[in-house]
Amino acid sequence: MKPLFEHIVIAGVGLIGGSLGIAGKKAGVFGKVTGVGRKTANLELALEKGLVDQVSTNLASVCHNADIFFAATPSESISNVCLEAAKYLPDQCVITDGGSVKKEIVVKIEKELPNNIHFIGGHPIAGTEKSGAGAAIETLFQNRYTILTPTKNTDAKAKSKVKEMWQTLGSDVRLMDPEEHDQAMAVISHLPHFAAYALVETILGADPSGEIQRFVAGGFNDTTRIAASDPKMWRDIFSMNRKPLLKSIEQFEQSITSFKEAILNDEFDKLQNRLKLVKTARKSMDDHCK
Amino acid sequence: MKPLFEHIVIAGVGLIGGSLGIAGKKAGVFGKVTGVGRKTANLELALEKGLVDQVSTNLASVCHNADIFFAATPSESISNVCLEAAKYLPDQCVITDGGSVKKEIVVKIEKELPNNIHFIGGHPIAGTEKSGAGAAIETLFQNRYTILTPTKNTDAKAKSKVKEMWQTLGSDVRLMDPEEHDQAMAVISHLPHFAAYALVETILGADPSGEIQRFVAGGFNDTTRIAASDPKMWRDIFSMNRKPLLKSIEQFEQSITSFKEAILNDEFDKLQNRLKLVKTARKSMDDHCK
Repeated sequence: MKPLFEHIVIAGVGLIGGSLGIAGKKAGVFGKVTGVGRKTANLELALEKGLVDQVSTNLASVCHNADIFFAATPSESISNVCLEAAKYLPDQCVITDGGSVKKEIVVKIEKELPNNIHFIGGHPIAGTEKSGAGAAIETLFQNRYTILTPTKNTDAKAKSKVKEMWQTLGSDVRLMDPEEHDQAMAVISHLPHFAAYALVETILGADPSGEIQRFVAGGFNDTTRIAASDPKMWRDIFSMNRKPLLKSIEQFEQSITSFKEAILNDEFDKLQNRLKLVKTARKSMDDHCK
Repeated sequence: MKPLFEHIVIAGVGLIGGSLGIAGKKAGVFGKVTGVGRKTANLELALEKGLVDQVSTNLASVCHNADIFFAATPSESISNVCLEAAKYLPDQCVITDGGSVKKEIVVKIEKELPNNIHFIGGHPIAGTEKSGAGAAIETLFQNRYTILTPTKNTDAKAKSKVKEMWQTLGSDVRLMDPEEHDQAMAVISHLPHFAAYALVETILGADPSGEIQRFVAGGFNDTTRIAASDPKMWRDIFSMNRKPLLKSIEQFEQSITSFKEAILNDEFDKLQNRLKLVKTARKSMDDHCK
């Protein structure tokens, strides 16, 4: 069977880019996979692990016969990488990405991209706190959601092919408006990361010598695991999704204040009822995520 | 070999009490294990799982020949359960407990306990978000810390035997002042639970229809897992450890405010440096908890 795309160029062969390379190769979605990046050690590892067929540090030299370009670089650089690649990509080539924030990227690319190249924003919801080619795995997108963020400007054929690509790799594809995507992610992903960072910072402040941290139990470990996520990646996300995140942080502060006041005012029946509602909701979230 | 204790009465045969029963039986620490509780279905399950040798719903009838009494009921009822049991326990019997908050329990019991019965507060740091006899396992205390909170009033022999009990079950036993214990737990356990509850409540508020919760990914699941913890148990803990918890919550609020201001003021280099410090600290916490 003819592959969906003859030649994909993946910029940024880390967890997401590398996993797309190997998953697409194994599924026959791509004829050839070229990985582009700056760090030669990471590119060599990607080649060694079979995530890609060939690697290069030079975007200009590998784009001319690609029929799809995937940007999986840090979110902050995605729009520039895509616009740079567009200079070398052939007519009718499709560009998509894996960035965790969409509005800023989509607006900038749609504004500056030549008409003969087609862009659709994407976000496979499949991150872990790990990064780099070493963390990439073939099964990363299986039974995960991938959100695509088409707009009124999106080419219908590009949308349909990118959707088919993710579906073939096992993703449940959902379409959302870029802004709606960013607001949703602020709540369910960016705020939890923000909270985990603030929580660990609080513990550090209360226990600078590390004396009591030895007693941390399972619950704490899970709750703060994502505070070991890549600082540069999260700086970019917090910066690019600033407005929706700030709104979520304020809602979080309100919830904290209100819980705190229930404790201060000895309203423990009321507090227990809130904990019950939360427990029920949290359990039903488990059902969403099998 | 003679068991360390001939007959233990365990009040509350849930995760902690049931696990102590089965672990102590298997290790030969207890000659006989009696489980006491209110819910007959839970007691029958405990008996069926072999967590205890016999069960009763009547504290008065089983205490007369016990040489140790362990209270693993909800924290709020521990002091009353211990003081009630003391009426029936024989001379020189040892009382200890597994409550997550210590100062309030220790102060009350030491004040009211007869002189011929010996109490030492304890806290095996081995909880999960599960509860009940069904969740009890023999290995729960292996490679875990158990904190004992002796005071100037604690009987030396009782302290030594309770310490030996936990060590035989695989725990690393540490001694702390009850107040020091409660402050430490407020930071590393109660605040993370509080934060997880507030986080899930925030998400519920932002997404009352549950529309976007379907997209929750791994990081979110881990971070909020403990928000499915038992509401009654955490109501008790928040209530009994109110003062140290409120202090921790205020420190958490300060960290959140300061992170938020860094985002508002576009100080992303500074923010990234803080994320880096947090990541490093979080990774070193992993080393504490193998």
